Amino acid sequence: MTNLLPVLDHAAASVPAALERLFDLVRIKSISTDPAYKAEVQRGAEWLVNELRSLGFDATVRDTAGHPMVVAHHDGATADAPHVLFYGHYDVQPVDPLELWEHDPFDPAVRDIAGGRRIITGRGTSDDKGQLMTFVEACRAYKETIGALPCKVTILFEGEEESGSPSLKPFLEANAAELKADFALVCDTNMWDAETPAISAGLRGLVGEEIVVKAADRDLHSGYFGGAAANPIHILAEILAGLHDADGRVTLEGFYDGVEETPENIKASWDKLGQTADKFLGEIGLSVPAGEKNRSVLELTWARPTAEVNGILGGYTGDGFKTVIAAQASAKVSFRLVGKQDPAKIRDAFRAYVRSKIPADCSVSFHAHGGSPAIQLPYDSPLLNKAKDALSQEWPKPAVMIGMGGSIPIVGDFQRMLGMESLLVGFGLSDDRIHSPNEKYELRSFEKGIRSWVRILAALGAR
Amino acid sequence: MTNLLPVLDHAAASVPAALERLFDLVRIKSISTDPAYKAEVQRGAEWLVNELRSLGFDATVRDTAGHPMVVAHHDGATADAPHVLFYGHYDVQPVDPLELWEHDPFDPAVRDIAGGRRIITGRGTSDDKGQLMTFVEACRAYKETIGALPCKVTILFEGEEESGSPSLKPFLEANAAELKADFALVCDTNMWDAETPAISAGLRGLVGEEIVVKAADRDLHSGYFGGAAANPIHILAEILAGLHDADGRVTLEGFYDGVEETPENIKASWDKLGQTADKFLGEIGLSVPAGEKNRSVLELTWARPTAEVNGILGGYTGDGFKTVIAAQASAKVSFRLVGKQDPAKIRDAFRAYVRSKIPADCSVSFHAHGGSPAIQLPYDSPLLNKAKDALSQEWPKPAVMIGMGGSIPIVGDFQRMLGMESLLVGFGLSDDRIHSPNEKYELRSFEKGIRSWVRILAALGAR
Repeated sequence: MTNLLPVLDHAAASVPAALERLFDLVRIKSISTDPAYKAEVQRGAEWLVNELRSLGFDATVRDTAGHPMVVAHHDGATADAPHVLFYGHYDVQPVDPLELWEHDPFDPAVRDIAGGRRIITGRGTSDDKGQLMTFVEACRAYKETIGALPCKVTILFEGEEESGSPSLKPFLEANAAELKADFALVCDTNMWDAETPAISAGLRGLVGEEIVVKAADRDLHSGYFGGAAANPIHILAEILAGLHDADGRVTLEGFYDGVEETPENIKASWDKLGQTADKFLGEIGLSVPAGEKNRSVLELTWARPTAEVNGILGGYTGDGFKTVIAAQASAKVSFRLVGKQDPAKIRDAFRAYVRSKIPADCSVSFHAHGGSPAIQLPYDSPLLNKAKDALSQEWPKPAVMIGMGGSIPIVGDFQRMLGMESLLVGFGLSDDRIHSPNEKYELRSFEKGIRSWVRILAALGAR
Repeated sequence: MTNLLPVLDHAAASVPAALERLFDLVRIKSISTDPAYKAEVQRGAEWLVNELRSLGFDATVRDTAGHPMVVAHHDGATADAPHVLFYGHYDVQPVDPLELWEHDPFDPAVRDIAGGRRIITGRGTSDDKGQLMTFVEACRAYKETIGALPCKVTILFEGEEESGSPSLKPFLEANAAELKADFALVCDTNMWDAETPAISAGLRGLVGEEIVVKAADRDLHSGYFGGAAANPIHILAEILAGLHDADGRVTLEGFYDGVEETPENIKASWDKLGQTADKFLGEIGLSVPAGEKNRSVLELTWARPTAEVNGILGGYTGDGFKTVIAAQASAKVSFRLVGKQDPAKIRDAFRAYVRSKIPADCSVSFHAHGGSPAIQLPYDSPLLNKAKDALSQEWPKPAVMIGMGGSIPIVGDFQRMLGMESLLVGFGLSDDRIHSPNEKYELRSFEKGIRSWVRILAALGAR
């Protein structure tokens, strides 16, 4: 294995220059949601292509129906070096309300704040320009010292991530052969805390269902018909109340098929993070964990499946009172999936359960909203463990493998369309105020992020 | 007892003239909800005062903060004759959409329709001008034959019933001594069917409650918090689902205190009406009676208390899907009361039940919407039975004592504010299209309605 010290030292010494490059990129107002900034988004893509070409990448701006992609290729040091696809996005969120910004969002600078922290201010510093530049600068450190990269690297930078990625799937489909690598590196996530790097090993899947329960053919007067006519809100309430048992487990038949217990050593590592129900729920004004009994809040949100009602509507909901029995009532229900739970089977089980609760003279209709399985890397995967060791060498505390309660669509797309797993590593912090005024990125995240990628690329390249 | 035949004959013979008087009244566009018709409402009151004065009533137009009342007094034939207060309203609903009327709503006429039926067309013919004129014409028949009325009669005609009766309570309060009678006659209801007159002996009471369940202090992302954070929609669904047991009975503690079984003879008379679940529910597209098991639909809607959710709202209810866990969810719940159920106790029991279901870190707030006890005349009351016998002599089928699922506020007001019971008798039919285009009143309802009041006044006057 190459001696990394010169590369790491060079990365650290180059931070002032790296910051100037990041500032250049942040100054480009690449707001993808606002057509007024279309040329700026284009300029962002071109800036990145120039930057990558200066590092010896074969880089091009690639047109789509929307904003362009940047695709770049660089060989590895050896012919058998592993091939990684690095993904990031160079578009940013709008900046309004502008008056809430303490500094011009497009005039980045390093500033000192309380607690001896140094931050880089500006729109996109954390989401995702600062993050993607940690990888680019890591490549630069290799090129400017060793002159080669430990891995074969393909880069994909998107310009529509903040606009819902409308062109991404078609682009992946049209360019699958070019983009397919051994695995993907996705740098759009956070550390556990400022001391503890994190790798997201699992992402929960999602099944969304909308149900409409219909009873009478019109709204009824509850005086005239109350007590004899079916009330669809009652039916719906019973359906929804019956989704969980007294222990907070989901009652659907076969719901837990494919759900595996988290390995003890992983649970132990989560316990060490010091997260508690009081802390986690205290932030949102709660204190009592809901859901399954006898599981930590991290397990509940990272490694356990859920059923949540996201919306419900029926009858009269305006001011005052109307003694109506509604003709229909509806609910939106979502299931977060883990492990090998099958979205189609969960959907079927839900629909069968709901149908079993509908009286003979009432009806129900269903509308599917999305369905994607969980993504779970094996905790003993060499990919994960190499990255974990590399990160642990860079940061004060060892890296932790975490779950993510939500979904990152790109990860599923890479898995389904390109057949590759993603390693999710990022150096954002939860107080970076992404999507909000006064977005910032820690200078330490930038510097140690660059050095983290130097280490990870080395670890992955070492067969 | 007076020989009624001359009075009844005179009433029948006077129908053509009586119709002309009704037409005069219907031609007055006394739409109380539309300020443009304020003068017409006033004209309606003045017309009635003139009409009543012509019959020897001491009648006056009485101003209120809104539209005027008409109050009229007439002595009974003897000093100890019972004193009745007759209530009706002379204001009408708006007529739009006008293009759906087959005939001018304010140009009434008698028309022949299919089945040999003759109807009086026009706005207010059934609700309530035609109905109140049946009573006025009955008084006329007495005056033009015998020259006296069997009862002391006070008349109260309201001009704001279709506008929610804003002035009624203040007026009753301010004029309680003048309006207090032995009992009230209210003519704003329907027959059971075209052959069968009905007396409403019971009106269900009502308790309305709005509850808001609050969990986290903001809407949450269901990926990040789902499975650990309380979901107020789940809590609400469990509360609402738990309101009824498997037999459809309401589970609140003490809910059935004061609920008495309907006497067997009354239930038998209801069974004879031939109402079935198929017929009753078939009209609204249903077939399976909800609510309490093993009770007829008439019993369920007339004589049993209910709990109905009238509205529910929480989370995201727009198009598409949003994986949110709502900060709060709300429902409007109403209870229909019968017998001696105490509204305050029902409200307390509901609130205690709801509170018992709220997790320690969540909260609930309540908002009361109305609370009125049921009104139930004893089925063996002399008042009811005299009216029942009188009606049964006039119509092809015997009168039936029915319940009413809904509420008629004036009846509660008379009971609470003037301490008198109401006898609810009316000759409308369910197909009269009140509040809709092409309102009509059966000519037979008008004629036999007049004769019914002749008989009822005689029966009530006979001590």
